[in-house]
Amino acid sequence: MASYDPDNIFAKLLRGDIPSEKLYEDDETLAFMDIMPRSDGHLLVIPKTPCRNALDATPEQLCAVIKTVQKLALAAKQAFGADGVTIQQFNEAAGGQEVFHLHFHVLPRVEGMPLRPAGQMGDMDAIKAHAEKIRAAL
Amino acid sequence: MASYDPDNIFAKLLRGDIPSEKLYEDDETLAFMDIMPRSDGHLLVIPKTPCRNALDATPEQLCAVIKTVQKLALAAKQAFGADGVTIQQFNEAAGGQEVFHLHFHVLPRVEGMPLRPAGQMGDMDAIKAHAEKIRAAL
Repeated sequence: MASYDPDNIFAKLLRGDIPSEKLYEDDETLAFMDIMPRSDGHLLVIPKTPCRNALDATPEQLCAVIKTVQKLALAAKQAFGADGVTIQQFNEAAGGQEVFHLHFHVLPRVEGMPLRPAGQMGDMDAIKAHAEKIRAAL
Repeated sequence: MASYDPDNIFAKLLRGDIPSEKLYEDDETLAFMDIMPRSDGHLLVIPKTPCRNALDATPEQLCAVIKTVQKLALAAKQAFGADGVTIQQFNEAAGGQEVFHLHFHVLPRVEGMPLRPAGQMGDMDAIKAHAEKIRAAL
């Protein structure tokens, strides 16, 4: 497996070099909006410390991140009156990974609404409004 | 959210009332083959104690399960010479959940090979052979 690249975009986001719509943070994790949302409220949870994905993460990183995933999944479900939540985590390009800093996708789901195609930039005003709803539910 | 149904098929599987192709177990978790594999080596990891999904799981259940997910993801990747691993976890029917006992899907991925459609029963001889490869890699 390739090593961790400290210039990946989530590393830059953690350093504040690029902006993000933050939802929640604690000592170990950060949650923020995905800018290519496949459902309303699509968010990401990452560890603050470096690891490439779930294959090289420490148990501590995995536990911290999955606890924040649960917290945000509950908040996002409530914020959107969603019927369910889909969680995805991709490892290496063949596994679907595009940014090589461990991240979990949290996707609020409404009955009968398929996910939108991946890779389509969202409307930033809508994303900011969705973020506000999630923060209010936390 | 509906309550936990002690007669869901994974509860029956944990009680030994229905068979499974087991890969690994520890005090808190069990890993076994998915009988509708969307990729070769598709496996599931569940807690031994009851919870419906990631929305009602305890932090202890989530941490135990995600650590076993990592262990099995590494073994399955090695067993199949896979290029990556996709991890999925579904909450409630709208989120993709079909069995209402918390489970994580671990899908070894080979570059250029899309996932097979969901819901198609696999060949049990092939699944047993794949399980043997994963157990050997553990």
